[in-house]
Order: sequence, then structure tokens, then C-alpha cells
Amino acid sequence: MSLLVVGSVAFDAIETPFGKTDKIIGGAATYISLSSSYFTKNVKLVAVVGGDFAKSDIEMLQKHGVNTEGLQIKENEKSFFWSGKYHNDMNSRDTLVTELNVLGTFDPILPESYQDCEYLMLGNLAPAVQKTVIERLKKRPKLIVMDTMNFWMEIAMPDLLETIKLVDVLSINDEEARQLSGEYSLVKAAKKIMELGVKTLIIKKGEHGALLFHKDQIFFAPALPLEEVFDPTGAGDTFAGGFIGYIAKTKDVSFDNMKRALIYGSAMASLCVEKFGTERLLDLSQDDVNSRVQEFIDLAQFEIKLA
Amino acid sequence: MSLLVVGSVAFDAIETPFGKTDKIIGGAATYISLSSSYFTKNVKLVAVVGGDFAKSDIEMLQKHGVNTEGLQIKENEKSFFWSGKYHNDMNSRDTLVTELNVLGTFDPILPESYQDCEYLMLGNLAPAVQKTVIERLKKRPKLIVMDTMNFWMEIAMPDLLETIKLVDVLSINDEEARQLSGEYSLVKAAKKIMELGVKTLIIKKGEHGALLFHKDQIFFAPALPLEEVFDPTGAGDTFAGGFIGYIAKTKDVSFDNMKRALIYGSAMASLCVEKFGTERLLDLSQDDVNSRVQEFIDLAQFEIKLA
Repeated sequence: MSLLVVGSVAFDAIETPFGKTDKIIGGAATYISLSSSYFTKNVKLVAVVGGDFAKSDIEMLQKHGVNTEGLQIKENEKSFFWSGKYHNDMNSRDTLVTELNVLGTFDPILPESYQDCEYLMLGNLAPAVQKTVIERLKKRPKLIVMDTMNFWMEIAMPDLLETIKLVDVLSINDEEARQLSGEYSLVKAAKKIMELGVKTLIIKKGEHGALLFHKDQIFFAPALPLEEVFDPTGAGDTFAGGFIGYIAKTKDVSFDNMKRALIYGSAMASLCVEKFGTERLLDLSQDDVNSRVQEFIDLAQFEIKLA
Repeated sequence: MSLLVVGSVAFDAIETPFGKTDKIIGGAATYISLSSSYFTKNVKLVAVVGGDFAKSDIEMLQKHGVNTEGLQIKENEKSFFWSGKYHNDMNSRDTLVTELNVLGTFDPILPESYQDCEYLMLGNLAPAVQKTVIERLKKRPKLIVMDTMNFWMEIAMPDLLETIKLVDVLSINDEEARQLSGEYSLVKAAKKIMELGVKTLIIKKGEHGALLFHKDQIFFAPALPLEEVFDPTGAGDTFAGGFIGYIAKTKDVSFDNMKRALIYGSAMASLCVEKFGTERLLDLSQDDVNSRVQEFIDLAQFEIKLA
């Protein structure tokens, strides 16, 4: 009964209007694992890093209860590296450097002890690699959530279209939904994407919240209005980690529970952006998470009794 | 016990990607009156039109229960005229023509029978005119809501700053909030604006919903994700009309009731944009309004019990 997380574990160098970092730990699977670790202590990681990766960072993941048996270390290679600079409005960024390094030949090997996984979170990776993970699981998980990005729509659309048919929940942002569907209206985009075989769709709108689509139902989770966003890096992955972590904890894949999971994911993302990189995710308390969720309840809840 | 609505009653010519209109009835007070008429049949209008204005349009307002005793008709002048063209994304528009005409010398005369008003909605107008209305009321209404726009921040900031101190609720959009405060973050913007003497602030974010600020409390009403927006003209005024109309109907100016009013306003705005101009507001049923509010409930409501 565990949560399997697959994705990049990497180095990021980030520049925002508030400051600049050297190479710090980043990567989709890092944010997902850390975020979900606040909901379940049974997180199993599959990823690859190079010999340049710090042992202390791996220990940090382990301290959060993340099983790193599936973390491959290629001693003579270098870790995936991304560097980006955010614009003043924090809603757009320029990628300065992308070095695939070990990620270019990543073969997602699943340790035997991972075969019991009931929940699978496929962080952003080549869709063919995401598909391989699903194929290598002897028993299909109860819920498979997949994140992806526009890059794969440009260079690997056939793989992407094959893989999304195999998952339960697809998580993309608004621009990616528009690109994938060719529709500007997100309601129309969602319909077209569900016609591709996606059962449940999450469309992330950054500071404007997130939408959850399933059959004819739509749910909207707001983003928390913040005084300051220090660094949006990893917000989408942290959201995904909170979403799947909450579902793994509650063992309930109903639409009503996914609504709650969307709020928990949004709460985790709103915490993440308050500091640089993974910093804010390193030592949250249960109270920190609960108070933040309470802020979402206060923000969004109202009582209307229709006659 | 009535709702006083002050603002423009005008002609609009609108072009959107879906079509084009000749001169049709428009103006802030028109949308506000129509929208609020679904909540209270005691709407009293103060506005000015020219001799070119159609009797049938005035009758249309009357049929919706709008008292037009305070509607001045200047037979030898022309009505205010605005013409605009929306871009493909519907989020931005170019103003093609603005002819102030009768509005340039508008003196808001209040009929004696309007002096009983308990709720006052000041639609977008020169802040000095809005202030005059407040001064001409012998008894201060229970709630004064004021809408304004960036134009007045550019040419009449001192008047604007004086007037907002006299009202209870200020309603502006996100860009206007940023302009008025000099802050990009809407939370910071709201704080600064409240320091100017605004007790309750609504920040409208168009397709991204609306925020309500009061002291340390924040509430967010989502916008309904729509397949198609035909014409956003009047959406903000329709929102304001639903907001103040609901409050006038329920006679409750508490923060919790304002939250509900924000949802009703959002519901009315989401209906308005489904057709050109005021068309969709002309013959709604109570069921139409209730079903739309139910869609907002389904969209935004979740149940989380924190341990």
C-alpha cells in the first residue's frame, strides 16, 4: 500500500526578482515526493541522478520517509540540470540552461519491493518513459496520475497520446490544455482532451487556481492570494504531490475526495512558493498544513440555501 | 426601502469575434438596474439620456420594475455613446469611439421620492458626480457601493480619493487595483487601498473570478468556466447589480452575506456574457438565476473536516 513517484531528481539554478540560487536540489519527483510525504510515509521514488548529486540531499529525502531504493546513481555522469529566470510578474520565465545528462538515457527500473504500489504519480518525463513504468507494474495501481508539459506535445505527441489513455488523471496547465486541444476556451479544451481518453483532467492555472474535470462535473480550487511569491519553481509538482498524497492517505478515488485533494494540493503549492526551491517543504508541521487548508476553506466557502 | 442606482444609460456599438451590433442600449446603470431587478422590484434610477434615446428602451427598464422618475431626458442633446471592439481572447478590447454628449454636463438630480433609499449603487461616473449623489441624500444609505475605472485615476485622482472615503464598498478590477495602489500583488494592493479609507474592497478579475476584502478577511468567488463568451460588455456592472440587488433583497450587510452576494453577482455576470449587450438580462426566470447559482455551488463547494 504505497505511493510510487517517478520523475526527475535534479539540480536547479533559479533567479527571481527576490534573489538567485546556485545549484540546488530540484526536479519534479523531488517536489512531488516531499509534498506527498506530509500525507503518507510510504513514498517510493524512481529516478536517476549523477555522481555529482549530494549524499546529503538523498538523506534529506530519506528523512522525509521517501524510499530511495529506486533512485539510480550513475557515478560517472552528471545530474539533470535546469536553470531559469523569472520575469517581474512571476507568471513567465526564461529557461537559461537545460542539460539532460543522466535523464537522456533514463530507464525507470522498478525494485521488486515497489510492485505493491497502489498509487502512481508520473511526474513530467518523456511519455514513453512514463508508459514503460505503467507496463512494468505487474498489478495496475488503483490510481495513476500523470503530469506532462508542452515540450512533449511538440516532440513526442504520438507517445503522449498513447500514454494518456493509460492513466486515470492527467494534470497540465492552461496553456498546455489549449495546445493539446487546439481550443482557447478551457471548457471546450477539457471536452476535447477527455475525448482523447482522459478520464479525469486537472487544468492548472497558476495564480488563478486549478480546475478538475470528470464527465460532466467541474470543480474549481482557487489559488491563495499571497502577498509575495518568492519562487514559483516546483509549484505544479508540489500541487501534484499534495493531490496524490492526500488520495493515497485517504484511499478514496471518488470525485468528492479528488475535490478535497485539489484543495490540499493547492495548499501545498501555496506554501512551496513562499521560499526558494524546496526550502519551505523541508520542515512543515501538520499544523502548518492544516492552517493553510483552513485558509482555503475561509477563502472559498460560502453558504447559500436555494429556495 | 429601495435601491438607488446612479450611472450611465447609453448607446453601445459592440464588435466581438462572434458578431457586431449597431447602437444598442448600454451603460453601467442599465446593466446594474436590469441585474438588480431580479432581486428587488424597488430599483430607482438616476441617469441622463438624449432625445435620441428610444422610448421603448425606457419602457423596457420600467417593465423590469425600474423607477425612471430620475431619468433625465435632454431632448435636444445626444445620449452617451461608446463603441468598442474585443480581441480574440475576449480579455482585452479597443475603444473605438467615446462621445460623452449628455454625460459631460450630468447633474444627478434626485427626485424627492428617492430619498428613502437604503442601498446606493454608484455606477462608473466622474467621482465628483458620485460624491454629489451621496451629499444630496438627506439620510445616509445602509450601504453605498461604488464602481470606478482607471480613466478617473488618470484625470480625477483627488476627487476619486475623496469619494472612496465616503462609501462602504469599492469595486474595481485587478489592473485598476494595481494602478490605484502601485502594487502588483493584489493582497498588497488591497491593503494599500484599504489604508485609503476603503472599508470593503472588491477586486474583479474577469474570467478569473472576484476577490472580496474586509479587514483581515478574504473571500474568493470563482468565475464560471464557460464554453463561449459572446460579449463581455456590461459584465462588471451586471456583477455589481447582482451584488447590491442581493444585499438589498436580504437586508444584510454582514461579511458572510456579502460572500453570498459576490456569488450572486458572479452568477448574473456569467449569464450576461452569454449573449450580446443586455439581451440575456431581458427575460431571465428565477429558475435561470437559481440554476446558475447552483452551478457556482457545485463548482466551488467542498467538504473538509480538519482533525
